Amino acid sequence: MPQQRKTQTIPKAPVARILMNAGAKRVSAGASEAFADFIHERALTIGEKAARIAKHSGRKTVHGDDVKLAARR
Amino acid sequence: MPQQRKTQTIPKAPVARILMNAGAKRVSAGASEAFADFIHERALTIGEKAARIAKHSGRKTVHGDDVKLAARR
Repeated sequence: MPQQRKTQTIPKAPVARILMNAGAKRVSAGASEAFADFIHERALTIGEKAARIAKHSGRKTVHGDDVKLAARR
Repeated sequence: MPQQRKTQTIPKAPVARILMNAGAKRVSAGASEAFADFIHERALTIGEKAARIAKHSGRKTVHGDDVKLAARR
């Protein structure tokens, strides 16, 4: 099977591992993919907020606190 | 510098890449780490819900739809 990748996203393996840590006995390929997609979308949203917050503070570099503030809203 | 890892979490590189795609000009190491931590915690929460949903449906395997339902709440 040729490896098909959409655009860059979160790798599936750590995502599946987190699901297992969260109490899943087994995880389907679709579950890891749905999860990675969900995380990716959330991450983009938070990332956009963090980038705006950094810009608003006159910085080009996004700092950890920007991410924390963006994630809180 | 010895590589220090907490418990398994989301790798920083794809996380930083998402931040860049979201419009960040530069991303500090702290930002990637804060972001990875945030994603990890959210993922654990969603993962626990998804695992409960699968169990409730009499399955040991977490499916994509379980994740989608868990993420929606």
